[in-house]
Amino acid sequence: MGYKSDIEIAREAKKKPIQEIGDKLGIPHEHLLPYGHDKAKVSQDYINSVQGNKDGKLILVTAINPTPAGEGKTTTTVGLGDGLNRIGKKAMVCIREASLGPNFGMKGGAAGGGYAQVVPMEDMNLHFTGDFHAITSAHSLLAAMIDNHIYWGNELEIDIRRVVWRRVVDMNDRALRQITASLGGVSNGFPRETGYDITVASEVMAILCLATDLKDLQRRLGDMIVAYRRDKSPVFARDIKADGAMTVLLKDAMQPNLVQTLENNPAFVHGGPFANIAHGCNSVMATSTALKLSDYVVTEAGFGADLGAEKFMNIKCRKAGLAPSVIVVVATVRAMKMNGGVAKADLGPENVEAVRKGCPNLGRHIENMKGFGVPVVVAINHFVHDTDAEVEAVKAYVRELGSEAIVSRHWELGSEGAVDLATRVAEVADGDSANFSPIYPDDMPLFEKIETIAKRIYRADEVLADQKIRTQLKEWEAGGYGNLPICMAKTQYSFTTDPTRRGAPTGFGVPVREVRLSAGAGFVVVICGEVMTMPGLPSVPSAENIRLNDAGEIEGLS
Amino acid sequence: MGYKSDIEIAREAKKKPIQEIGDKLGIPHEHLLPYGHDKAKVSQDYINSVQGNKDGKLILVTAINPTPAGEGKTTTTVGLGDGLNRIGKKAMVCIREASLGPNFGMKGGAAGGGYAQVVPMEDMNLHFTGDFHAITSAHSLLAAMIDNHIYWGNELEIDIRRVVWRRVVDMNDRALRQITASLGGVSNGFPRETGYDITVASEVMAILCLATDLKDLQRRLGDMIVAYRRDKSPVFARDIKADGAMTVLLKDAMQPNLVQTLENNPAFVHGGPFANIAHGCNSVMATSTALKLSDYVVTEAGFGADLGAEKFMNIKCRKAGLAPSVIVVVATVRAMKMNGGVAKADLGPENVEAVRKGCPNLGRHIENMKGFGVPVVVAINHFVHDTDAEVEAVKAYVRELGSEAIVSRHWELGSEGAVDLATRVAEVADGDSANFSPIYPDDMPLFEKIETIAKRIYRADEVLADQKIRTQLKEWEAGGYGNLPICMAKTQYSFTTDPTRRGAPTGFGVPVREVRLSAGAGFVVVICGEVMTMPGLPSVPSAENIRLNDAGEIEGLS
Repeated sequence: MGYKSDIEIAREAKKKPIQEIGDKLGIPHEHLLPYGHDKAKVSQDYINSVQGNKDGKLILVTAINPTPAGEGKTTTTVGLGDGLNRIGKKAMVCIREASLGPNFGMKGGAAGGGYAQVVPMEDMNLHFTGDFHAITSAHSLLAAMIDNHIYWGNELEIDIRRVVWRRVVDMNDRALRQITASLGGVSNGFPRETGYDITVASEVMAILCLATDLKDLQRRLGDMIVAYRRDKSPVFARDIKADGAMTVLLKDAMQPNLVQTLENNPAFVHGGPFANIAHGCNSVMATSTALKLSDYVVTEAGFGADLGAEKFMNIKCRKAGLAPSVIVVVATVRAMKMNGGVAKADLGPENVEAVRKGCPNLGRHIENMKGFGVPVVVAINHFVHDTDAEVEAVKAYVRELGSEAIVSRHWELGSEGAVDLATRVAEVADGDSANFSPIYPDDMPLFEKIETIAKRIYRADEVLADQKIRTQLKEWEAGGYGNLPICMAKTQYSFTTDPTRRGAPTGFGVPVREVRLSAGAGFVVVICGEVMTMPGLPSVPSAENIRLNDAGEIEGLS
Repeated sequence: MGYKSDIEIAREAKKKPIQEIGDKLGIPHEHLLPYGHDKAKVSQDYINSVQGNKDGKLILVTAINPTPAGEGKTTTTVGLGDGLNRIGKKAMVCIREASLGPNFGMKGGAAGGGYAQVVPMEDMNLHFTGDFHAITSAHSLLAAMIDNHIYWGNELEIDIRRVVWRRVVDMNDRALRQITASLGGVSNGFPRETGYDITVASEVMAILCLATDLKDLQRRLGDMIVAYRRDKSPVFARDIKADGAMTVLLKDAMQPNLVQTLENNPAFVHGGPFANIAHGCNSVMATSTALKLSDYVVTEAGFGADLGAEKFMNIKCRKAGLAPSVIVVVATVRAMKMNGGVAKADLGPENVEAVRKGCPNLGRHIENMKGFGVPVVVAINHFVHDTDAEVEAVKAYVRELGSEAIVSRHWELGSEGAVDLATRVAEVADGDSANFSPIYPDDMPLFEKIETIAKRIYRADEVLADQKIRTQLKEWEAGGYGNLPICMAKTQYSFTTDPTRRGAPTGFGVPVREVRLSAGAGFVVVICGEVMTMPGLPSVPSAENIRLNDAGEIEGLS
């Protein structure tokens, strides 16, 4: 039996005009700023007008540590949203926007899959409503203004060896990782080393996703540290006088983008910060607005629960005053098998023993999520070849932990396949049993915050860091940054910093390689292991096969 | 008496929903792809459906050599369009999109001025409908794919010293003019020198503006030369397999953008190639479509008539099969005075003698335009302090040449001030006296084409070029590029290559410094003097004063 590809299903979608989708949320047409017939931004005036509304329930979808088998976190987020609507709830979905660059390398879209997708899928994987281009522009303007300031006399006394503001482009371009700029003589400035990151790694992206309004956006942009003087005192974007113009460039990008699921339910797709050096979830603007417009908001966080959900709660929820009512941890039978030691090529045959062996990875995530005071439901994202015995093994394991695992077939069946999951999730949310709290207080010293995450979430024995790093953290505390939360950057494939250690490992330390201050976004980035902020293209990039066919349809995008 | 600023007037505009503007052209709402409530792209399906319509009359607005006094070419284009509509004609305007980067340096918008503007002015000076971002993305993808090809083994045997495809960004960033990329070791590639131009200088921009449809776009993108081998044989974008994905990235950018004038008349604002290394006029797609949708299409070309109009005719009209019915040469009393030797600071008092002395600049442009077989009307773009005697001096001069100069007060009065101009222009267009022809044939040798332009348009005695340049032209002729038109890049301030020589100079040569082949755009660029393809920011960039005010309005953009 043949299954249709995601893009085939997406193309067959019976999309409704975006105004009709807005109608479901009660948004008057004049407050929807359309981009084509199937995308729209919600006006700031309308967002202001609904601030008195009661908040809906926030549902976070997270997952076990990702494996090459795929977990389907976005797919489950979309399926659950459609499922809630199917059982008569007023629900919407909030997910991230996709980065343009990686589409030309290997990966396809980030809009769900099967019969649980958000559309228009192709637009979402291309320019969409231009938000990321606006971020690239704002970031580039600041970069140009810094070098321009140096060129015209350097009144701020920037040490050109200590300009920390790099440049960005939304493209996988390894040739730009490290460059020497301002070459060519007097009229081009003072030569210095710098480099490019991909746009989603820009601090501007993190700020856009955490800012609560345009004023907060401008304040945060101004707070960014762009360089240091010889005496190591920081130079801020505000000193460069770039914050006002950057805000103007980001004005429209701040407004959430409304699109629809295949079942014509509303979805916000807005913002897309890196899940390593940033917090990896969609914008506060979108989530907060969705909570004012619907009774249930289903959102997701990047990577596994140890990274994505931890940051969702300790950074986004803490700073935005959000609190999830229930957490859905997505697992698959295949991923359990891989965590149980099976190679990807051998996932085919039934292997209940391997499923059981892999379950402790799931178990630890469940415990961790409960540690935030939030009830957990496990969603088994069903693959068509999963056997009943394998599924039952996961269910039994979760039952022993005092939670419940529910099979969901949204990929194959859309909302019809997600009714059980939606019903249970709504029940738990309505039970109001959550008592959310971040796992460390604002006023804990920075290094202790890192230790708290490493020990309570990863179950490490210790955090290893050079004196230089500890001193740096102390200096930031002295500089008034001690109250910031921590943004961990480590591999998503393991609780440890070693991507090959699947399951639920113990007896390890977490080595900290580097710490960075994102003073505008408002967190301290703690880097444990390699972090790649500018990907490269593979030897045969997917771009070679992306083209318009004779019918004018896009081929090869996903 | 105080006059309102352009931005104040634009903010007070009583804009109509873009669908109503489309109604005036008969475009069904489903074929208008809206971007907000006041901008829309016209669908390709609709454009295909009107190909059987009769073409309207094409009216080109050009100008004398620009002076710091300002001529108001775009303002006159918009005013004339509104004037034609006021006298009952079905007319529309086609102008270029503005580049983002320069707005943060010095210049304000490119949307006209006074009561002859296109709106939404602020959007047009920011991201607009994202066309330029799409061009930047497509250009960047090709750049990344070239270095990626080299990184993975360089099967095409590209000489890394001869990669001619630079990178672009839509920002004034002099630090990027010359860089060394791919530094940092094995994983980042092979270090080489390269640099950035501003996006409007990209060959992709020129191609987008000359392509007749998406197939033609892809073919031209594939034809671009991106590098040479050690044996100097060219490597094309097609060899890199980037043309398909670039076309996908440019799919929406190819569709013309519909906006409106302050008087709610339709305008296409689409494309914006550099007027030096490219041809400097709006897209063929927009102009051709406008001709199918209205009876009169008013468009403009960059810089003065010696550069902009010459290229409009010899490149755009030749290649797209367009033919203007009438040419409007814009002059101002102030610019005549400057051409007559008056400094900008001394433009205040009446000076009829200086006006007369400056008129030969206008006279030469009139003769040149007639040389293309097209009748000319001179528009005196009226400034409120121009005296009657000064205006009469210009009129008398033009009358002696057998043409007619008409005062137009659109800046001050909108269409009401442009009725005389519109009436006369429509009469001339309707008279069908034009017999348009480019001034050199396709099969003339490249160097002779350059000489033809220099002698017939600039009135130079000779073209000076090293043997190296002449040999290069011969090589291109041998390579099959001999039939291409010439794209001159010289100062816009003079008929000569010396920007200080105003008026109608004689007795000079035109030195050619460099020639470049734009094989995809389909022209040979001939560079005479300095050409800056990446501007810098001034010591106090206007970005420092651009911000949102408390009402959420943009301050400082213009």
